[in-house]
Amino acid sequence: MKLAEMTWPEVDSLPRDLVVVVPLGSCEQHSYHLPFLTDSLLVGAIAEAVEARLQNDVLLLPVQWLGISLHHLTFPGTLSAELDTHVALLCEIAESLLHAGFTTFFFLNGHGGNQETMGLALRQLQADHPEGTFAGASYWDAALDALRSHLETQSYAGHAGEMETSLMLHLFPEQVRDDRLGKDGQWLPPVFAGVTLAWDVGERTDHGGLGDATAASAAKGQRLFAAIVNRLVEVIRALRAGEHLIS
Amino acid sequence: MKLAEMTWPEVDSLPRDLVVVVPLGSCEQHSYHLPFLTDSLLVGAIAEAVEARLQNDVLLLPVQWLGISLHHLTFPGTLSAELDTHVALLCEIAESLLHAGFTTFFFLNGHGGNQETMGLALRQLQADHPEGTFAGASYWDAALDALRSHLETQSYAGHAGEMETSLMLHLFPEQVRDDRLGKDGQWLPPVFAGVTLAWDVGERTDHGGLGDATAASAAKGQRLFAAIVNRLVEVIRALRAGEHLIS
Amino acid sequence: MKLAEMTWPEVDSLPRDLVVVVPLGSCEQHSYHLPFLTDSLLVGAIAEAVEARLQNDVLLLPVQWLGISLHHLTFPGTLSAELDTHVALLCEIAESLLHAGFTTFFFLNGHGGNQETMGLALRQLQADHPEGTFAGASYWDAALDALRSHLETQSYAGHAGEMETSLMLHLFPEQVRDDRLGKDGQWLPPVFAGVTLAWDVGERTDHGGLGDATAASAAKGQRLFAAIVNRLVEVIRALRAGEHLIS
Amino acid sequence: MKLAEMTWPEVDSLPRDLVVVVPLGSCEQHSYHLPFLTDSLLVGAIAEAVEARLQNDVLLLPVQWLGISLHHLTFPGTLSAELDTHVALLCEIAESLLHAGFTTFFFLNGHGGNQETMGLALRQLQADHPEGTFAGASYWDAALDALRSHLETQSYAGHAGEMETSLMLHLFPEQVRDDRLGKDGQWLPPVFAGVTLAWDVGERTDHGGLGDATAASAAKGQRLFAAIVNRLVEVIRALRAGEHLIS
Amino acid sequence: MKLAEMTWPEVDSLPRDLVVVVPLGSCEQHSYHLPFLTDSLLVGAIAEAVEARLQNDVLLLPVQWLGISLHHLTFPGTLSAELDTHVALLCEIAESLLHAGFTTFFFLNGHGGNQETMGLALRQLQADHPEGTFAGASYWDAALDALRSHLETQSYAGHAGEMETSLMLHLFPEQVRDDRLGKDGQWLPPVFAGVTLAWDVGERTDHGGLGDATAASAAKGQRLFAAIVNRLVEVIRALRAGEHLIS
Amino acid sequence: MKLAEMTWPEVDSLPRDLVVVVPLGSCEQHSYHLPFLTDSLLVGAIAEAVEARLQNDVLLLPVQWLGISLHHLTFPGTLSAELDTHVALLCEIAESLLHAGFTTFFFLNGHGGNQETMGLALRQLQADHPEGTFAGASYWDAALDALRSHLETQSYAGHAGEMETSLMLHLFPEQVRDDRLGKDGQWLPPVFAGVTLAWDVGERTDHGGLGDATAASAAKGQRLFAAIVNRLVEVIRALRAGEHLIS
Repeated sequence: MKLAEMTWPEVDSLPRDLVVVVPLGSCEQHSYHLPFLTDSLLVGAIAEAVEARLQNDVLLLPVQWLGISLHHLTFPGTLSAELDTHVALLCEIAESLLHAGFTTFFFLNGHGGNQETMGLALRQLQADHPEGTFAGASYWDAALDALRSHLETQSYAGHAGEMETSLMLHLFPEQVRDDRLGKDGQWLPPVFAGVTLAWDVGERTDHGGLGDATAASAAKGQRLFAAIVNRLVEVIRALRAGEHLIS
Repeated sequence: MKLAEMTWPEVDSLPRDLVVVVPLGSCEQHSYHLPFLTDSLLVGAIAEAVEARLQNDVLLLPVQWLGISLHHLTFPGTLSAELDTHVALLCEIAESLLHAGFTTFFFLNGHGGNQETMGLALRQLQADHPEGTFAGASYWDAALDALRSHLETQSYAGHAGEMETSLMLHLFPEQVRDDRLGKDGQWLPPVFAGVTLAWDVGERTDHGGLGDATAASAAKGQRLFAAIVNRLVEVIRALRAGEHLIS
Repeated sequence: MKLAEMTWPEVDSLPRDLVVVVPLGSCEQHSYHLPFLTDSLLVGAIAEAVEARLQNDVLLLPVQWLGISLHHLTFPGTLSAELDTHVALLCEIAESLLHAGFTTFFFLNGHGGNQETMGLALRQLQADHPEGTFAGASYWDAALDALRSHLETQSYAGHAGEMETSLMLHLFPEQVRDDRLGKDGQWLPPVFAGVTLAWDVGERTDHGGLGDATAASAAKGQRLFAAIVNRLVEVIRALRAGEHLIS
Repeated sequence: MKLAEMTWPEVDSLPRDLVVVVPLGSCEQHSYHLPFLTDSLLVGAIAEAVEARLQNDVLLLPVQWLGISLHHLTFPGTLSAELDTHVALLCEIAESLLHAGFTTFFFLNGHGGNQETMGLALRQLQADHPEGTFAGASYWDAALDALRSHLETQSYAGHAGEMETSLMLHLFPEQVRDDRLGKDGQWLPPVFAGVTLAWDVGERTDHGGLGDATAASAAKGQRLFAAIVNRLVEVIRALRAGEHLIS
Repeated sequence: MKLAEMTWPEVDSLPRDLVVVVPLGSCEQHSYHLPFLTDSLLVGAIAEAVEARLQNDVLLLPVQWLGISLHHLTFPGTLSAELDTHVALLCEIAESLLHAGFTTFFFLNGHGGNQETMGLALRQLQADHPEGTFAGASYWDAALDALRSHLETQSYAGHAGEMETSLMLHLFPEQVRDDRLGKDGQWLPPVFAGVTLAWDVGERTDHGGLGDATAASAAKGQRLFAAIVNRLVEVIRALRAGEHLIS
Repeated sequence: MKLAEMTWPEVDSLPRDLVVVVPLGSCEQHSYHLPFLTDSLLVGAIAEAVEARLQNDVLLLPVQWLGISLHHLTFPGTLSAELDTHVALLCEIAESLLHAGFTTFFFLNGHGGNQETMGLALRQLQADHPEGTFAGASYWDAALDALRSHLETQSYAGHAGEMETSLMLHLFPEQVRDDRLGKDGQWLPPVFAGVTLAWDVGERTDHGGLGDATAASAAKGQRLFAAIVNRLVEVIRALRAGEHLIS
């Protein structure tokens, strides 16, 4: 069910233990070839496909397109929340529906910059509402094995690279400037594997992207999209069935 | 120009003194007959029509659909930010673009509950960035005279009443449950004119609306929409021309 | 009853449903001819006159003289709270008496800069204490019709203009430097009617005032004062009688 | 100079290195015999007497009557700020005048509950504005030796006891209910000397006072008042002369 | 160099581009057999061994033993900071030394609960101090490959399981109650791989541990310790050499 | 009992009304001759000696070494929390154990800079948890009379002076650079007795100390230590016996 199109009596008739899905995007630069709303468009399309498969199990919220893009602000047009505001935003969305009796929440994240605030919001919500279930995943983390098998470059964790460009070519081809696919930015050396290093995107890439966009294709995007949606359907179905609870 | 569809080099080529338009909506109950996203749909349509008329003068942002609906939370499905979070949200959106050199901001509000937080954000931004111009209006306040001449009931300040239902019938008729138009809620007595009284919507109306939705029509919605857009074009053109500055 | 002069057993004997009146002023520049405490003096005098008429219906608090004057800080001597501090201040005053069982609050505002924070505090209090009644008004908004009939210029919304100077000449004539009445500042063009535009007072006026102080007189101040007090007595009597509640 | 009665050009003509005096009071229960505003009345009278002696050295602000009285809230009518709000309040008052170029601040405290927040505000202001001078004292601490010689009981640190009742009998006798002087509350045992123990006033006294009010007299109040004012004049004169600075 | 034992002139003589190492622990329950300070003891020992190998490259701070243990609070004795306090704590420690001119920071984390707040602090510091380098890692993430080859069970991400118990048996054997090694708690099903699910530890385990402590040994602890220290020396040496910077 | 070394079942078996002792230190410059961790070392040694005498009456927490040292930040290596973070830290430590049922808390402070935040935390905890007992003392305040009789100079309130240096010579002689004992800094003139004046340490002393370190000796340190421990045992025993409660 899509909250956006419903009326309150329709929501009131729903079982309170279905899975509330909260898609999280961004409005930030995506190199020369993808639009600002890329992350929000992609996570919205993924979320709608999941909802179409699990209509009676999911209450889908609108995509919150304002995310954490502090590290992209040197590229004009990027919008970013501050970190504490974003944590509050996520908690307050969930708390509005906790107030109405819903119990199970899944933050479906489509933007790398949101990972820490999403993680913090999950901890905060669990501490404040121990009776609820609070889960979340970046779609590429949930579908990691599938993505690895479909991608030629290691860029699944990149920005406006092979994965995102392929998905855009499949889902929103009219929004891709395919004559502007830039060459790769500079990655961290392997010695820093397992280490988090905060950096400004502008330090590592002139065009704003990380990962090889020239490896992208619509056909690849179609396969990636299917794999991601399948995997998320599996996760949310398990949450709906209570498989995370102690038997 | 619509930020959502642009790339960063395109934004970078814009003059920094055009008017950044930030549409503000809500995701809250709208009685039996209108969907949760009503305010966001309407303000988005108005903003797009304004942008279409002033393409070179406006940078239009996506609608921020999360607003202040604390007083609607008893109706299940309503989402609300806390007051301080919403103020922060508005300031941070503007500050992202101040960072990029833009100077002139217009919050285009489509939800009554956002009026205080919008007002506070305007004051905060002005205090923190005295070099910028920060304006805002609820569309019904900006177009008050026109609305009065088009509406039969006094419900322009209502909720899911004559004005909003007419606009929805004109713009998004497929989303109106026109067999569910409820009777009016209970208004404040006239002795309280000029007085702000905080109240929970659930105290004054069973169905969640205030104002007479049965007076609505698509034709009226068309006239209201034109009047609102005309008036906002006038305002934003004046801001763009710097008519608010001291000569 | 005036809280300031009472002892706690006297307060403890009061009915808990009388109207707690919280007068809000400022300590900010008022052009060449009025003192910093003008708003606080005026709202205090109005509040005391209301209390004198409704002694058994009102618990009057001292005037909180620190308000929002961020937009006047370029004039030396102006004091201002930050926006969030002022909201907290208003909420905490009310919550102290909610703790003691009082239920009905009226913020009587005498300073334009406080309008957004007062509005926000009303919303916050209502959300946190749904059982209480939280109302507020700037005295000129509550008495708008009366003021329009008594004022020659359109300056009722001004600063140190016809209305405030008249009231000071009536109530505190010894504090008016009547040889220093300045000429008018520069107003916003009519195209911005219904639009909120944040501005620093210093941008629009050299002397710090807006509105024509030379139109002021003590006789006019006497008529304005009576009209304001009459109107507020009417409002507070209605609150005391519960006319705002659903029958 | 008293800010309240001045205009901004008058403030603008002052030397920026005079001492800004910020009197801090409370609005809290004072047993059966003293009014809620006792602390604010006393510190205001002391501050005015100091200002009268040092007119060209002092810029006196209005008394901030809202203090920290969380530990008195069980007595109806008591008003209290939260701790962080009070710290913010004190800092923002000073910062308004730092903005105008003033450099030297003295918080003159008349309420025990404000001591920690005043101390914190002094530290915060010094850290944020290292170029300024930020001092503060509770009047009984500054004049400790004098008070010891004038008081018969050890109640100078009490509440509505010998010292405060004597000062009220001297300065505001019409506000003292002298037929309601209560017997003493229960003090902490001597083993806790040098230890801070947080307690609610209601735990230690039925009538709300600590210290023996029956030892009070107007004559004693006159002597105490003179001693306090003399001592504060000495302190502020030294600040004005820069004796706290390193030679 | 160990800050704890130094004087300020000694710190003042250090090159400002060495790597400041900030060890993060916890004070939380560790099942029946390990003490509350386990995480802090282990990360302290690791940090000291790293410092011993890189004396001229590292400024080692004391272990901050207060971490995020909200999800362990049902086990008496556990101490936890709130999430925003912990983020502030980490930022303020770094900012104290940024103030002194140091530029490169490595948070060495020894407690799973700190991962989100550490991540948030890294983002905040980078946004506020773009000139600095801010890195961090949980020691088991940095040394993941090595740990996988040494551990028999999959418990490296556990709590008081094979890894932590082995390290304690090697480093602090006198603090292990080796007669109280509990059986494993209940893990999340594999369907949730790549998904973050917030949970209270008490929901999944009676004794407070996750992972098989009976697989632990001092010999294994010695091998793990060497692998972890070697790996961290490699990382910090690379940071010190500026290998993370763009060439 | 020392929390650090215990397991949770051991804590769970404790009576909930013993006194939780929270030692507070700093990590700040201590002139040329003492290490950064001086305050934390001393308060830790004092706390352990108290615990050794009152094993069944005390639950001793680890020393929180991060304190308020904003006024020492000009000396490189000093670490400081912000004021509100430190207040939160103290409250959250206590609240973790309030959650587990403990009722009685004693903050044992070893650093002057923490006095205001400790005082504020005590007030906040008492307001939020009126059923608990919250006490605190700087060790030199609790043992003031004893210290006066043992010290030759008036430096007990100093920094790295006679008292602290003597205690370090007694307890941690290997950490004292006894060839670097600096001469005294510049004190405030006596006219400011009873007045709090915020200052940066760097303004008053070149070497970072206040008070005469050359008057220190290990023998004196031994006598001071015994006096301090004796006095604190007396205080905590009284708290444990409930002597602060109203009979």
